[in-house]
Amino acid sequence: MKITAIAERVVPIKSDIRNAFIDFSQMTVSVVGIRSDILRDGKPLIGYGFNSNGRYSQSGLLRERFIPRLLHAPPAALLTDDGASFDPAKAWDIMMANEKPGGHGERSVAVGVLDMALWDLVAKIEGLPLYRLLGHRYRGGAVDEDVFVYAAGGYYYPGKDLGALQDEVKSYLDMGYNTVKIKIGGASLAEDCRRIEAALAVLGEAAALAVDANGRFSLKQALAYAEALEAYDLFWYEEPGDPLDYRLNAALASVTSLPLATGENLFSTIDAQNLIHYGGLRPERDFLQMDPVLSYGLVEYLRTLDMLAEHGWSARGCIPHGGHQFALHIAAGLGLYGNESYPHVFQPFGGFGDDIPVRDGRIQPPQTPGIGMELKADLLPELERLFD
Amino acid sequence: MKITAIAERVVPIKSDIRNAFIDFSQMTVSVVGIRSDILRDGKPLIGYGFNSNGRYSQSGLLRERFIPRLLHAPPAALLTDDGASFDPAKAWDIMMANEKPGGHGERSVAVGVLDMALWDLVAKIEGLPLYRLLGHRYRGGAVDEDVFVYAAGGYYYPGKDLGALQDEVKSYLDMGYNTVKIKIGGASLAEDCRRIEAALAVLGEAAALAVDANGRFSLKQALAYAEALEAYDLFWYEEPGDPLDYRLNAALASVTSLPLATGENLFSTIDAQNLIHYGGLRPERDFLQMDPVLSYGLVEYLRTLDMLAEHGWSARGCIPHGGHQFALHIAAGLGLYGNESYPHVFQPFGGFGDDIPVRDGRIQPPQTPGIGMELKADLLPELERLFD
Repeated sequence: MKITAIAERVVPIKSDIRNAFIDFSQMTVSVVGIRSDILRDGKPLIGYGFNSNGRYSQSGLLRERFIPRLLHAPPAALLTDDGASFDPAKAWDIMMANEKPGGHGERSVAVGVLDMALWDLVAKIEGLPLYRLLGHRYRGGAVDEDVFVYAAGGYYYPGKDLGALQDEVKSYLDMGYNTVKIKIGGASLAEDCRRIEAALAVLGEAAALAVDANGRFSLKQALAYAEALEAYDLFWYEEPGDPLDYRLNAALASVTSLPLATGENLFSTIDAQNLIHYGGLRPERDFLQMDPVLSYGLVEYLRTLDMLAEHGWSARGCIPHGGHQFALHIAAGLGLYGNESYPHVFQPFGGFGDDIPVRDGRIQPPQTPGIGMELKADLLPELERLFD
Repeated sequence: MKITAIAERVVPIKSDIRNAFIDFSQMTVSVVGIRSDILRDGKPLIGYGFNSNGRYSQSGLLRERFIPRLLHAPPAALLTDDGASFDPAKAWDIMMANEKPGGHGERSVAVGVLDMALWDLVAKIEGLPLYRLLGHRYRGGAVDEDVFVYAAGGYYYPGKDLGALQDEVKSYLDMGYNTVKIKIGGASLAEDCRRIEAALAVLGEAAALAVDANGRFSLKQALAYAEALEAYDLFWYEEPGDPLDYRLNAALASVTSLPLATGENLFSTIDAQNLIHYGGLRPERDFLQMDPVLSYGLVEYLRTLDMLAEHGWSARGCIPHGGHQFALHIAAGLGLYGNESYPHVFQPFGGFGDDIPVRDGRIQPPQTPGIGMELKADLLPELERLFD
């Protein structure tokens, strides 16, 4: 059993979106395929991966470092001890050989893309949807058959008014979501309060609203927003300050009753551990959003979950950034709180199976072997193009 | 005044070196040239930059993100308000547009390479050696006319015995160094103690020895080494644990009298701030080794020095990783403690001016305008090749 080829392409995400920090219109994504010599129905099994939005394609790092390391490894070094499948943990060690500790960014995305492809391949070899494979390996066979998902949107668009925001929020309710997230921090506090009130008016009693500052605020601003936001019954207040400013986070957590959510811009287990040590988060109330694909893949995310368990956090405190099927399988298989979703944006990568609806804010993972990326009609051509 | 072209090449560092963590034989460096429309002696002024060793070339990030952002910026946006020169701080903001906070690695190196080239260009435009320009701007004209440098070596080589280690240490003394650093953690504690004793036997009373674990140790190992190392009069004990494991560092600092040194794998001001907040370092005893080129360049390093000053650290507590002329100018211009040097390795990038000797462990920066990379005969062809 061996890898016969690894293909990589860069695909742009076309978007008019901006949040408090970035303009997504220049954003790119790396898509990879890892082709094996295992035949199913006469065709080689291929695992696919891509990176979550918000960071960029990692073409150079993939082509110069991480793909060559996998291709140059002795084939047996990538396999489980019994030789029956590929071993993503062994592949991880090979990819990270000769990499110094510290400085976790970009390369963590490149490794995460290849890690996704390896898990897709492994689940296909075992003939299982990835979430079932994860449940068998790590939860004694238990899985969640559906997963909480929330609709992340409410971006600032040029010319977008409160009515347009309300139309957007309503569209998420119509799609079956009952929790919606909107951006804050790209306007004044007064204007953001009007946006929050407009969104809450649409959501009513039955649905919930989270807000996301994308790491923009100083401590003073974060506290001022917290004071104002406590007037509303919010699902959470996300990334108020710089994601690495643990002291700001701890100060805020010490004074606000609002649930806090953060972690999507921490890209390693040790960074997440620092958040837990120093960030003042409250396991019974707050949420952790580390994104497996941006942070060295599921192999590292499993280490992060172990670290969290040692510090009294359950997997139910985790709801990853990402908004794609890989994160959905991880949530269902490992028993996370849920998963982010970007209903109208980051296509064709975001979202879940085309024929799988959101019901009461929950969604089922696809039942096909692997991750099920091939079930998304608009994503399939991007995958097929890899080995053309 | 404008940038007319930016060229970028990848150059391998050929080396048999390994430390406790990595094998350098696959290491690559990005070299860039930023060409301006300013003519001197009929030729356009060019600023050059390259990345410090230990991390890899960032060709993909440079070509896909950071070089295009500089080239697509309106030319005036890169200039000082009076239009008389380029402004590295404005260029920094342009390079980092649409980059999310957090995840500081790789891109911090790409930005650092371009930042070095911009400072080289700015100093050439002003006709000053970079250290004098920095002294004028940031120290009221004061500069250090020579800088403490120490010889970092003592790597593990296949087949290298204690005699070879002693020969190496002696070669540094012969070159004029009086402080030498060797690696630890790639052998047993007993073997490392024999290596330390062998090195100290050569160094004698007049010279000093530092040791570097390259982030390899667990807390238990770090403490065991500390206990053993206290038997020797060491210059410092470097990077005992994971560079982001502030708790380990704080625990160690609370029990050891050895000076500690760390920071070369922290690549942003906010990461350095977390080290200061949580790492338990002692300003009167310990050393900070953040590398300007690996961590978003001198523009960010100036912010790091400001942050350090707010926390009671002087620039004299800083001795950057890097081992090249850019770091030497920064040390001389900003009044750092000194600068690392890699006498026999990382060529042609490491080291200082060919005709400038180390005397009593100190060295003078070159007196030519800019950084003076052109004064290294073996580096010059790499620079000239950029625009061939």
